[in-house]
Amino acid sequence: MADTTIILPPGLPQVIIEREFAAPAQLVLRAHLDPGLLAQWLGPREMTMTVERYEPRHGGTWRYIHRGPDGQEHAFHGVFHGQPSAAGIVQTFEYEGAPGHVKLDTTTLQERDGVTLLRTVSSFQSVDDRDAMVASGMERGVRDSGERLEALLATLAPAGRNQP
Amino acid sequence: MADTTIILPPGLPQVIIEREFAAPAQLVLRAHLDPGLLAQWLGPREMTMTVERYEPRHGGTWRYIHRGPDGQEHAFHGVFHGQPSAAGIVQTFEYEGAPGHVKLDTTTLQERDGVTLLRTVSSFQSVDDRDAMVASGMERGVRDSGERLEALLATLAPAGRNQP
Repeated sequence: MADTTIILPPGLPQVIIEREFAAPAQLVLRAHLDPGLLAQWLGPREMTMTVERYEPRHGGTWRYIHRGPDGQEHAFHGVFHGQPSAAGIVQTFEYEGAPGHVKLDTTTLQERDGVTLLRTVSSFQSVDDRDAMVASGMERGVRDSGERLEALLATLAPAGRNQP
Repeated sequence: MADTTIILPPGLPQVIIEREFAAPAQLVLRAHLDPGLLAQWLGPREMTMTVERYEPRHGGTWRYIHRGPDGQEHAFHGVFHGQPSAAGIVQTFEYEGAPGHVKLDTTTLQERDGVTLLRTVSSFQSVDDRDAMVASGMERGVRDSGERLEALLATLAPAGRNQP
């Protein structure tokens, strides 16, 4: 599969992330909504992720912590808008190290011939907020996440198969 | 007090709304968080507003319906991100007539010498979404809301006064 594409439209408070996965959309969705799976792929690969709360439903809140090899912790939290599905996972996102700076993430999963295009549009409150997140090293975390998700999906059977 | 200022930055998926009110921030905040008060000022003045659900807390959801003199109904819903306060009311917003198009609204209330500057930054998922909302007549609704809120605040005692 192709690499992750990260688009930073000049002067726009947005980041667009795209990557294809050789897996059905429902499986890619499961890797997003099951916190036990999410913790296996989201974030830079040297981080350990602890999901403190994860309620994938309209109004459901989530919070997770990434812990680096140096013991440093980074916590994030947000809220789901609408019932998450392949048509759209819409959620807010706030890094607790920069309180008050919130973005709105819209993730869609489009399946075609067994390949799923995962696309996330992050809308920031300002171009400065977008640029600060890019400057914090976001791109490496996004690329690591894509590679780790690809590897995880290869180990999972499509939903519905291998059922007794 | 001055009129409402509506800023539509060219090519940016944002709307910025500002208006000053001759009232303390806590009173303006109350007019936003108490659904009984909210229904008295939010929206075009010919509309009747019914608040079906309103939970001003992190992860709390809300839904309200505007009903016009012709009986036509327009419903909206969203989710609060964080505990609403004068420092920030952050919430998602979706018009049910255009499902899947969500914006993130950040409202701040800054008080100085008894005058509160109310400022809302709406971040849309795209410039097209922003332009569609402007084309739908958003500006008149915003101006009506500002005038109606000003009139309502004049009838309310500042919080804490007139208490027994």
